[in-house]
Amino acid sequence: MSETLRHVLASESPRSAITVRGWVRTKRESKSCAFLEITDGSCFRGLQVVVDAALSSASLLPSILTGASVEVVGDLIASPAAGQKWELQASELRLLGEADASYPLQKKGHTPEFLRTIAHLRPRTNLFSNVFRVRSRMAYAVHRFFQERGFFYVHTPIITSSDCEGAGELFRVTTLKQGTPAKPEDDFFGRPTYLTVSGQLQGETFACALGNIYTFGPTFRAENSNTARHAAEFWMIEPEMAFCDLFADMTLAEENVKYLVDAMLSECSEELEFFGKFIDKELVNRLQQTLQKPFERISYTEAVDLLLKSGQTFEHPVVWGEGLQTEHERFIAEQHVRGPVTIYNYPKAIKPFYMRQNDDGKTVAAMDLLVPGIGEIIGGSQREERLDVLRAAMQHHGLSEEDYSWYVDLRRYGSVPHAGYGMGFERLLMFVTGVSNIRDVIPFARTPGHAAY
Amino acid sequence: MSETLRHVLASESPRSAITVRGWVRTKRESKSCAFLEITDGSCFRGLQVVVDAALSSASLLPSILTGASVEVVGDLIASPAAGQKWELQASELRLLGEADASYPLQKKGHTPEFLRTIAHLRPRTNLFSNVFRVRSRMAYAVHRFFQERGFFYVHTPIITSSDCEGAGELFRVTTLKQGTPAKPEDDFFGRPTYLTVSGQLQGETFACALGNIYTFGPTFRAENSNTARHAAEFWMIEPEMAFCDLFADMTLAEENVKYLVDAMLSECSEELEFFGKFIDKELVNRLQQTLQKPFERISYTEAVDLLLKSGQTFEHPVVWGEGLQTEHERFIAEQHVRGPVTIYNYPKAIKPFYMRQNDDGKTVAAMDLLVPGIGEIIGGSQREERLDVLRAAMQHHGLSEEDYSWYVDLRRYGSVPHAGYGMGFERLLMFVTGVSNIRDVIPFARTPGHAAY
Repeated sequence: MSETLRHVLASESPRSAITVRGWVRTKRESKSCAFLEITDGSCFRGLQVVVDAALSSASLLPSILTGASVEVVGDLIASPAAGQKWELQASELRLLGEADASYPLQKKGHTPEFLRTIAHLRPRTNLFSNVFRVRSRMAYAVHRFFQERGFFYVHTPIITSSDCEGAGELFRVTTLKQGTPAKPEDDFFGRPTYLTVSGQLQGETFACALGNIYTFGPTFRAENSNTARHAAEFWMIEPEMAFCDLFADMTLAEENVKYLVDAMLSECSEELEFFGKFIDKELVNRLQQTLQKPFERISYTEAVDLLLKSGQTFEHPVVWGEGLQTEHERFIAEQHVRGPVTIYNYPKAIKPFYMRQNDDGKTVAAMDLLVPGIGEIIGGSQREERLDVLRAAMQHHGLSEEDYSWYVDLRRYGSVPHAGYGMGFERLLMFVTGVSNIRDVIPFARTPGHAAY
Repeated sequence: MSETLRHVLASESPRSAITVRGWVRTKRESKSCAFLEITDGSCFRGLQVVVDAALSSASLLPSILTGASVEVVGDLIASPAAGQKWELQASELRLLGEADASYPLQKKGHTPEFLRTIAHLRPRTNLFSNVFRVRSRMAYAVHRFFQERGFFYVHTPIITSSDCEGAGELFRVTTLKQGTPAKPEDDFFGRPTYLTVSGQLQGETFACALGNIYTFGPTFRAENSNTARHAAEFWMIEPEMAFCDLFADMTLAEENVKYLVDAMLSECSEELEFFGKFIDKELVNRLQQTLQKPFERISYTEAVDLLLKSGQTFEHPVVWGEGLQTEHERFIAEQHVRGPVTIYNYPKAIKPFYMRQNDDGKTVAAMDLLVPGIGEIIGGSQREERLDVLRAAMQHHGLSEEDYSWYVDLRRYGSVPHAGYGMGFERLLMFVTGVSNIRDVIPFARTPGHAAY
């Protein structure tokens, strides 16, 4: 490993005879010298390298094209050019790896659609290097948020024989050959297994032992949806807290979003400037507003009421007892509240079996956190901790108690009120970067028909 | 969320009328009062609650058995008992959730084998709550190590159409019904897909854009091995560094192991004390010794030589050109070096196509880091960055360039020397806890025939 450009660019005084390595972003030549802008991905900014035409290794310049990798020895000096503190006066230039004219990233201005077809090269572009640096820092901020609060990180299983009822369509995992009439007993695990759609149920077992836990791992949906907001493989964050009710759950969700937005503003300023300039001019403003006041909280029943009274025409009718559609959610967050809003206490009939029933007999202690531009970014609930109520709900949903006996055990032995939520990590990234397609915030996106690499 | 016991136990002075919640670990009764030791999983230590027999809620005591969940209001006072600073003088006791006599964790001293059959309850035991608190802190330490060094975290895909040649047997991922003669074209992704065995190849594409990156995610092996060191699903850490050779790779691996051992010693002292007492009396000593000096480095050829000269009888003969067996590795680490040791420059014929060929024509720039008691904890290499040499190696291994064209592109456009390694997270946990079976450091272990939960 050599010194990174981020480190070099942070130098406080001139330095002589340093060695830098990177890829050529641009080359400009004049009679007396050439200017190479090189980057090594460690930060958005590049370093300008000045190669005097009289230098013997200047003879390499004709074969150093955009995308080539180079090593340069030289003196770091104050740059006379605007907008950059330092430049490197080369004393020696070496070509590490050529990039000929077939290099697909010659020119700027490729469409995101084209760049998706070269997912192995697109992190070298301005947009995607910024996206993936942000993805890394946000992931770390997620861990910091929970670890600083004493939460334990739990790796819930990816391969599972449980299906977290109702969360979505499943991928099957098998070692059997397709087409053979083999039985599940012959399979690797001796039974049918799937890719997890959520670590919640297993996470609850750990919350009922360690108190406050979180998961952060890949989850899967085999749904044939080709939208800008759905992927078959995505990362989800799922905290689960013992001795916690719905309102404390909402409070944590709000703190979580604010912590991550604050991390974006304070730790990703270079990238944020880029996104604000080229992706979404309202981005910085929207993020700052997110931090300014408490998120509003509106019950589902109030939400239905305000939608009915809004005078708006919606494509889907607003009816108490049915799910809110994206158009409804966006109206509430973007037109009514004009900011993040948590909607809670949803109708029992449209929610999974594990959510805690409210005393009204009609609703459950569920909540969704909506943000402008994205819609739902978090969904959670208080879990049903009463053995008899859970059993009745399972029966109502046609679930066998045998299949979920371990889950029921949590209510049989030392049951406690507990609650949690799931945050889609990619949704969060779309919110903080302004990037509008989920395929562009995932290193190698998996969608119907697409699993290259 | 309520205040955790870890927080309560760290109080600096007595406090009155606080509320605590937790599960009953033990109950002792005398004529005048009862002592409940309660824990909430936030730390290993419990809090002793003293319930005066005169208290009206003392009438609940007969139904408060081991495993029950309770809420107690009381005064935190200095404890007269040895070994604990505080105890709680209860003024009010509430039973949240009963645990009757069928609760499987009544008594201490269950075998690990039995506890694996109740993986949803075992995190409530001393051993497993300690293991999983350590797992969480070590995972966080992994992120800190890399983030502090400017590495970017990359989520390489879990579902993949590439098989990282030679790394192991694959699980297939499908939405087709077993037994039907459907074609791969009809499958969700339009082609056969698998669970990843390694994120390395995709990680290389990001290292060749962002410089220094790491992955930390689940990986899979469909191998029918029933050993204490193999699981079908496990978490792996895979850094990849641009502008890096084998020796810098070894140095990072050493720093990585030392950082994590240091985190174990300094951040998990309560848990470490438990492991040292009940699991492995040599543990603390071994961990401390790991930090004391540079890890030894021995070439494969030197290793073969010293094994041949050792006078030891091995089950597997020692032959230059064949892989080192566990008995050989353990002899070197435990008898010869008596500490961690890195073995490097392995025979080309036994290593995958992507490792960089050395000038001797016989070896590749590969390395394995061995630790006493475990054996291999890290395996890595410098990658072949020369286009022609890589192509020849692929041809030799019978790989189609078309299938790996994106991987070859990295050598076609701005190729750079780069290197990386993989660290098995569970192996690391076994090393720092002394726990000898991989099934006991994974929340819900997946092994042949086992995928409950």
